[in-house]
Amino acid sequence: MTTDITRPVGHPETGAGAVQGFVAPGFEAVSRQLAHIVAGDDGYSAQFCAYTDGKKVIDIWGGPDAEEDSIQGVFSATKGVAAVCVALLLQRELLLLDKPMSHYWPEFAQGGKASVTVRTALSHRAGVPGIEPQITQDQLMDHEYMAARLAAQTPHWYPGAAHGYHGLTIGTLMDELVRRVDGRTVDRFFREEIGDPRGIDVFIATPEDQEPRVRDVLPQRPTPEQAAAMKGSPLRQDGDTLSGMAFNKAVTDPLAELMPNVRRYRAAGQSSAGGVGSARGLARLYASCISEVDGMSRLLSPETVATVSQIHAAGPDMVLGLPTRFGIVFQKPDPDRLRWGSHTSFGHDGAGGAIGVADPWHSLAYGYVPRRMSVPGGADERGMDLARTLRQCLAEQRA
Amino acid sequence: MTTDITRPVGHPETGAGAVQGFVAPGFEAVSRQLAHIVAGDDGYSAQFCAYTDGKKVIDIWGGPDAEEDSIQGVFSATKGVAAVCVALLLQRELLLLDKPMSHYWPEFAQGGKASVTVRTALSHRAGVPGIEPQITQDQLMDHEYMAARLAAQTPHWYPGAAHGYHGLTIGTLMDELVRRVDGRTVDRFFREEIGDPRGIDVFIATPEDQEPRVRDVLPQRPTPEQAAAMKGSPLRQDGDTLSGMAFNKAVTDPLAELMPNVRRYRAAGQSSAGGVGSARGLARLYASCISEVDGMSRLLSPETVATVSQIHAAGPDMVLGLPTRFGIVFQKPDPDRLRWGSHTSFGHDGAGGAIGVADPWHSLAYGYVPRRMSVPGGADERGMDLARTLRQCLAEQRA
Amino acid sequence: MTTDITRPVGHPETGAGAVQGFVAPGFEAVSRQLAHIVAGDDGYSAQFCAYTDGKKVIDIWGGPDAEEDSIQGVFSATKGVAAVCVALLLQRELLLLDKPMSHYWPEFAQGGKASVTVRTALSHRAGVPGIEPQITQDQLMDHEYMAARLAAQTPHWYPGAAHGYHGLTIGTLMDELVRRVDGRTVDRFFREEIGDPRGIDVFIATPEDQEPRVRDVLPQRPTPEQAAAMKGSPLRQDGDTLSGMAFNKAVTDPLAELMPNVRRYRAAGQSSAGGVGSARGLARLYASCISEVDGMSRLLSPETVATVSQIHAAGPDMVLGLPTRFGIVFQKPDPDRLRWGSHTSFGHDGAGGAIGVADPWHSLAYGYVPRRMSVPGGADERGMDLARTLRQCLAEQRA
Repeated sequence: MTTDITRPVGHPETGAGAVQGFVAPGFEAVSRQLAHIVAGDDGYSAQFCAYTDGKKVIDIWGGPDAEEDSIQGVFSATKGVAAVCVALLLQRELLLLDKPMSHYWPEFAQGGKASVTVRTALSHRAGVPGIEPQITQDQLMDHEYMAARLAAQTPHWYPGAAHGYHGLTIGTLMDELVRRVDGRTVDRFFREEIGDPRGIDVFIATPEDQEPRVRDVLPQRPTPEQAAAMKGSPLRQDGDTLSGMAFNKAVTDPLAELMPNVRRYRAAGQSSAGGVGSARGLARLYASCISEVDGMSRLLSPETVATVSQIHAAGPDMVLGLPTRFGIVFQKPDPDRLRWGSHTSFGHDGAGGAIGVADPWHSLAYGYVPRRMSVPGGADERGMDLARTLRQCLAEQRA
Repeated sequence: MTTDITRPVGHPETGAGAVQGFVAPGFEAVSRQLAHIVAGDDGYSAQFCAYTDGKKVIDIWGGPDAEEDSIQGVFSATKGVAAVCVALLLQRELLLLDKPMSHYWPEFAQGGKASVTVRTALSHRAGVPGIEPQITQDQLMDHEYMAARLAAQTPHWYPGAAHGYHGLTIGTLMDELVRRVDGRTVDRFFREEIGDPRGIDVFIATPEDQEPRVRDVLPQRPTPEQAAAMKGSPLRQDGDTLSGMAFNKAVTDPLAELMPNVRRYRAAGQSSAGGVGSARGLARLYASCISEVDGMSRLLSPETVATVSQIHAAGPDMVLGLPTRFGIVFQKPDPDRLRWGSHTSFGHDGAGGAIGVADPWHSLAYGYVPRRMSVPGGADERGMDLARTLRQCLAEQRA
Repeated sequence: MTTDITRPVGHPETGAGAVQGFVAPGFEAVSRQLAHIVAGDDGYSAQFCAYTDGKKVIDIWGGPDAEEDSIQGVFSATKGVAAVCVALLLQRELLLLDKPMSHYWPEFAQGGKASVTVRTALSHRAGVPGIEPQITQDQLMDHEYMAARLAAQTPHWYPGAAHGYHGLTIGTLMDELVRRVDGRTVDRFFREEIGDPRGIDVFIATPEDQEPRVRDVLPQRPTPEQAAAMKGSPLRQDGDTLSGMAFNKAVTDPLAELMPNVRRYRAAGQSSAGGVGSARGLARLYASCISEVDGMSRLLSPETVATVSQIHAAGPDMVLGLPTRFGIVFQKPDPDRLRWGSHTSFGHDGAGGAIGVADPWHSLAYGYVPRRMSVPGGADERGMDLARTLRQCLAEQRA
């Protein structure tokens, strides 16, 4: 398989410029599919980038609002970025999964959490998916405040008895662990250890000099049917429910405010949902986790990958109301819901529809960033479809 | 908010006397709703009582068979009464959740249960939801007999591996723990520590002098469609199933016999399902758990409330076949099934339809006692609807 | 109840010879039902045999391809045969459920499995339902190879965090434990300790002298609707899924090859799925577990039966995608799916449709072996129907 991606994409059937970028021979089906999606929805634009065996084979963008070099908010896909930092600390044995959280972070022992392990906390099982009394958007951005509140919080379920997406809090858990173990914030750790040396176009806190490249996430455009269905969704529940509490609904709705479109939030480096990046950046990050990329050795050993991608929680999620599967922070694919890769894959999606995935079974990695927030939210079906086509291309080449 | 409830309810649109009692200003929507329900079903009568911030704001009763001062069987709502006693022992640190049951009750170590903790046993996870060979109704009422049989029972599932409603046995577990730790029965403990000093109109064992106030629970009146649906319900399963075994179907059907309508059963003080009370009693009990009431300090500290209302089991119930959620004995609300309060609420329903709930998030508590057994059984939808209206009234006043 | 089964079955309404064999008085409804099934499907043939209170009461076979003395592959029903050997070692306290696997099998400590207990591993919770990179059919038959690979395997889920059918690997776990503890293979252990002395017509490895009695399992004959439904089944998933991995789909499809129809596979003694037997053999094996049979004392004490039939895992199965329930190796009935006996019953089905069950609650045991692979696979509904009729006959006699 060659990896010549200097050949510009050209799909006459969909009109010049609908999709731009490069695909290696054998992967044309992916850009053709993106062109097809773009042609069918004038509100849709997206970037898609993929690596196989550590080599970039697809780097495309399409639709009226897609640009080659823009970055934008990726919401919870940020969690995956921070999770790579955590994985690196596990690999260096500076952080141990079976130690109590309170070993690294003594204040976390409050509220009956003295024996909650790092493993339990980082697999969405500690029972602290939200904070009560609830917090303001600005408090959410203040790491020290959040860490103190989370440390004091009594778990809503007995730790380990259930799991539920710690949508707004797992970033704080990761960031504080990194600070306690390494001394740096997770944002600085990422930049200095991973992002800068490897040229990965993803940022937990957006540096000032990247601001000109930032584009707004465009708001959802649900059809009337979709809008009706979303009203009944667990994520739209009242503030006096477990889901509502976890998403801090009694005070503010982080999704409604499109947080990463606001500079002061982008600057804060909230590692639950505050990051920005491009599809290219997500793809390169996940490729670097499992492969040598451009002569740089892989970030994570196969053993570390096996550890963080091992399923630690599966079944009905106490917060989302849907079945979810988690490794150590990372989401895992689910045959019924998140079909974004093989059973060995790991990654994270974001509320806007972004997806970043490493798939050791197929030796591939990809990033997908739609410009407009997907409906109903979370991993965009269209991004998963592109990835499925990518796996088919790969299967044909390897056959 | 004033709490003047001396103003009698009057809803001309539903006819004089349909609903009687008192509501504080701002809560009229609740009595109007009860009047509406009464007007639509001539077999329906109920009491409803609520406290907010420790003050009684609603005390109403409606329908042809509702009385101001009657008490009646509340079935499993009795479990909540006993659970408050257990919570008090936990608060006093006379009982510790992480001790093995056998620490307090050595005989319980039989059948592979030596290391089963109080926490596991009181969250419906110990695997002893029933006794085999099965027992007679009179044996069920004999605490010493039941305790000896339960102590000898091998769990039907490996303790902690699953959860299932211990419908007929969790009362015995509680009563025996109270006896071992305190010396008194759970009925005497409740009367002396809680019921009498606080004037709470609920009884685990009905005293002789209360008998004139007792009214029969009226039998279900299902529509033909409801009757057909109930036949397929897990609670109607054969005696050779886990559900059937738990409800002792191979020998007798406690529900079919309307146990609390029989004086000798009411006298027995079976804390799984043998208690009687009024809506007023249930409301005052739960209000006393979370608020100062009439100058008496709250029964349970916020820490104790957090402990017993923490979700310890969630998901498909091995006995009921439905998703259930439990704290320490107490039921927890479920977004799909038991919507009787906020995520912080805790309480218990009964087969007849009675509900008693404390809801710290809303600083409210309520009791609901329908005169006729609800269909299909368990928390009555109409009671939950009254409570929803109550929360709406409160939200409007606090807005 | 007499157990005279010398009276030949005769059901004039279904034609002579359609069903042959013997039924004790009071069980005629079962042979009548088999005759009815045979009459309705010319591709169907089966053996059915049952014991009550340790006495044979039914021994019948029907359909064009059923024979009195034939044996055939029973696929995963083999697991139940090996599980009886494991139960015997537990009863003798040579194997302890709460010891780590690595206590008996030090190599098993690899891949983060050092503390995985025998209990966790034998209840399908260890997370090693398959081996990657995947194996050939011949490697699957090579016990030493399989044991070495399984010992080295990192679990796909964190041990204990979930459960999923270890369809091809639990036999290796059992066989290796028996070898380490006893010195013999599980096949030799079974033959010498159970099969030969008790005259049980079931074989983990098929001896040469039994070969003339072996008949091929006939291939499935799904209707077009069934064939369509089967395509969407989790068992037909791609090789890059958890299910596909567990069934080794990336290399070979053990089901598609009808493994037990091949002599060299039958000779291998693969205790996950390689055994052969008759309905008579399965019935006698399970009857011997819970009853004295022909003057020979019961194999397993009530305590051992309670231990191995205790539910250790319940809920959505990570491999099968369906709810499953397991004891120690043995399958448990499920009210929604596997209704093959009371809640105290235990047994195992096979992909071909075979079922072997002991049901202490009813004091019965039965074996069922259809000649043709059932659709969609696993416990054949028709076999479960015969067993239901058997329980009804018994209930009438005992009433």
